[in-house]
Amino acid sequence: MATYVQKFGGSSVADAECMQRVAQRVYDTKKEGHSVVVVLSAMGKTTDNLINLSKQVNPQPAEREMDMLLSTGEQVSVSILAMALHALGAEAVSLTGPQAGIATDAAHTKAKILSIQPDRIVDNLRKGRIVIVCGFQGLSPTGDIATLGRGGSDTTAVALAAALKADRCQIFTDVDGVYTADPRVVKRARKLDTVAYDEMLEMASLGAKVLQSRSVEFAKKYGVELEVLTSFERMPGTVVKEEVEDMEDIVVRGVAADKNQAKVTIQRVPDRPGVAATLFKELASANVNVDMIVQNVSEQGHTDMTFTVPRDEINRTRTAVDGLLEIVGAAGASYDVDIAKVSIVGVGMRSHSGIAYQMFEALSENKINVEMISTSEIKISVVIRSAYADQAAQVLHDAFKLDQVNGTA
Amino acid sequence: MATYVQKFGGSSVADAECMQRVAQRVYDTKKEGHSVVVVLSAMGKTTDNLINLSKQVNPQPAEREMDMLLSTGEQVSVSILAMALHALGAEAVSLTGPQAGIATDAAHTKAKILSIQPDRIVDNLRKGRIVIVCGFQGLSPTGDIATLGRGGSDTTAVALAAALKADRCQIFTDVDGVYTADPRVVKRARKLDTVAYDEMLEMASLGAKVLQSRSVEFAKKYGVELEVLTSFERMPGTVVKEEVEDMEDIVVRGVAADKNQAKVTIQRVPDRPGVAATLFKELASANVNVDMIVQNVSEQGHTDMTFTVPRDEINRTRTAVDGLLEIVGAAGASYDVDIAKVSIVGVGMRSHSGIAYQMFEALSENKINVEMISTSEIKISVVIRSAYADQAAQVLHDAFKLDQVNGTA
Repeated sequence: MATYVQKFGGSSVADAECMQRVAQRVYDTKKEGHSVVVVLSAMGKTTDNLINLSKQVNPQPAEREMDMLLSTGEQVSVSILAMALHALGAEAVSLTGPQAGIATDAAHTKAKILSIQPDRIVDNLRKGRIVIVCGFQGLSPTGDIATLGRGGSDTTAVALAAALKADRCQIFTDVDGVYTADPRVVKRARKLDTVAYDEMLEMASLGAKVLQSRSVEFAKKYGVELEVLTSFERMPGTVVKEEVEDMEDIVVRGVAADKNQAKVTIQRVPDRPGVAATLFKELASANVNVDMIVQNVSEQGHTDMTFTVPRDEINRTRTAVDGLLEIVGAAGASYDVDIAKVSIVGVGMRSHSGIAYQMFEALSENKINVEMISTSEIKISVVIRSAYADQAAQVLHDAFKLDQVNGTA
Repeated sequence: MATYVQKFGGSSVADAECMQRVAQRVYDTKKEGHSVVVVLSAMGKTTDNLINLSKQVNPQPAEREMDMLLSTGEQVSVSILAMALHALGAEAVSLTGPQAGIATDAAHTKAKILSIQPDRIVDNLRKGRIVIVCGFQGLSPTGDIATLGRGGSDTTAVALAAALKADRCQIFTDVDGVYTADPRVVKRARKLDTVAYDEMLEMASLGAKVLQSRSVEFAKKYGVELEVLTSFERMPGTVVKEEVEDMEDIVVRGVAADKNQAKVTIQRVPDRPGVAATLFKELASANVNVDMIVQNVSEQGHTDMTFTVPRDEINRTRTAVDGLLEIVGAAGASYDVDIAKVSIVGVGMRSHSGIAYQMFEALSENKINVEMISTSEIKISVVIRSAYADQAAQVLHDAFKLDQVNGTA
């Protein structure tokens, strides 16, 4: 008999029918003899509708009141699921985040969980009940409702799993697991049985948005075993866990292509201290998320500086950069939205050399030009023309034999 | 500088535009230098929509979960009003029932307020903030959210006014006050400036549903001065308060006609103990709300028993009564849905005689036949043919000169 935390996102609880399907799924786990804690997001478009309502009375609503408003979405979900479970004959009780003992800091709309006192959850589990907790919310130090920000329900689930020392935290989504590549793009992309926390983090940051990075970090920190699986079919998903030795036998775990990128090059920046700081401070205050940064010395005393940003932030970026050119003494800037970032990820890279070479060679053989390179211990990313993104993903998937369970050339 | 509790019902906060109007109204009171606590119901059809959602997953949802679900409606209202007030430049904060210190018993969906610890409200008022509280809800002894049942927001407002020793509790509705009679039926029906708690209670029970009886009883118990007024126009409403001596100069305060009644007569009931008890016990368990009861001895050893019930409960009544006729040894029963109850109400009746006579004479002069009579200290009700209900209300309004401020013949 194990303890499971099961988290269902907004699309899994979109309407009454979805709720009934989730109830059946949860009850089945309970009937197998396990203790079950369920974490829910708001139903379907509820959060968006509430935000629209708020904008009608105030274009910049106070964050404390926004949390008061948005936290109702999850409260509706948990009570409806409790009712659906009761209809099946199950014993179940719903709890708000504050009732579940989730304490957060005071940063409304983007609060962090400080601690969990799960007494009330444990008490209900002991009585044989399924406990359903509102995701995404907790009680602030001032006794107010605080939300963890959008997507925070994953974090709630992982934090509860850690506090309850649960055997597994299952994240139900509309995909059935983590793949070696996007199966809509790459032929013979394969669902992974397991993936290491660090690999998952790199994949998330590369645009494979199966799990929120924050919840993966949390799971890694507390050693919570995550499983990503679909709520629409009964099949095992992908388990995200601490890397074990034989994981390193697989050098490359997956390929990710991010087509939502744009490239900015600032030409002939004076090569003196403080210039980069001025530039990236300005971009940060313009709320631009800079990703890859490459600097090439082009000639004595000057350098070209190139970086990538999300494509939908290119206008903000242009405004910020154009205003700085004269100040930093740069010659000019160019903007390119026709690029893509393609990456390979794997913890095995740490102990294997020559992976970068294999990657560049595979791309080169297919006449795909590499414009930027950035590497980490377990990831190599390249920037290429956007039109070649899908082809590059396929080429790399083939090159590293990712369609085979014991792949990697 | 006074303290006001202002309560706005569902139709006053139906959408964003209504919320902005309410915000302006509340802020105006605040700007006059008063402390303001606002109590809100759920927006428009929210509660009905949530009930419909619950029925889709469970035809008989658990009451504890129903409270968890429905209490979100008021929480949306209070946060939206806080945002609308902020947009006007006002300082305002929203509180749930539990946050406002409202403690209830454990009777989910129909809880009673046990106590209020208004520290957090008082603290915010001292800081110059408008405090907006969720109506209809509180915290149960087990730490759960409990609702007071529909219409319970009036009770919340009155209870808060009592706890805060507020100078006045203003109930904003879609009518502009309490009238001497239904102005849609009776010409020259006049809005009353004041009405006594007991008169208001009788009028409510007679179908003039301006205020929930329970909130009037509460106001009476704690001496809270109520004002009923419209949220759609700026004009004084009707003040409901303790009767004062000069109120007794007005013998009849108002006329109420209730056309939603049906009459049941059971013929030749054996005149022995226990028969009435058997009958009304059966009707109570069939959930029939019996109103007037009249028993006439018709001949030795038998009696005719007549009573009225709400018209939409006549089928339930018929089933219950027909099943009992043989058991109690009655000859038969007749059912009449073409009746109406017309009543006059006034605390002055206590100290004046001859009012019943004046009433019957006025009806008789207009050829309106009285079929049943029932009286209390401050009310006389008669049952007549339904077709004459409006005419009877007009006749009585004229007879007691209710169109005149110092009326009553």
